[in-house]
Amino acid sequence: MTAIVNIFLKEGVLDPQGKAIHHALDAMDFEGVEDVRMGKQIVLKLTSTNKDDAMKEVTKMAEDILANTVIEDYTIELI
Amino acid sequence: MTAIVNIFLKEGVLDPQGKAIHHALDAMDFEGVEDVRMGKQIVLKLTSTNKDDAMKEVTKMAEDILANTVIEDYTIELI
Repeated sequence: MTAIVNIFLKEGVLDPQGKAIHHALDAMDFEGVEDVRMGKQIVLKLTSTNKDDAMKEVTKMAEDILANTVIEDYTIELI
Repeated sequence: MTAIVNIFLKEGVLDPQGKAIHHALDAMDFEGVEDVRMGKQIVLKLTSTNKDDAMKEVTKMAEDILANTVIEDYTIELI
């Protein structure tokens, strides 16, 4: 089973990487971009075949080590 | 319209960030993790309402500036 963990800064938390990309896009004359946010995507290949177990395990990983839950939110997708 | 650009290293390209996460998970006794890959997720808020135009524009952004296509692949999702 594969777990995709998307980690992104919470609303209101400054995102300097996103801002840098926004500036670069403006400088290259890309128009129509209102906002840019940059996040992380972590793809885990798991041996587990039980969806509930996998979700529990990956949620614990995200809370304990993958995300900084003070400033970041995360979503988990199992495929 | 919102465009989500996922950028990840091509198969076979070494991923030191993913390896570091894998080691950390092992050290914290998370079991059943076979492989970890780390990528970027860039979320763009666009003024465009035309899906075809937006896809064309974001593809150009990804090719020109967001991804390093020598070592990275990308996917684009419009919502």
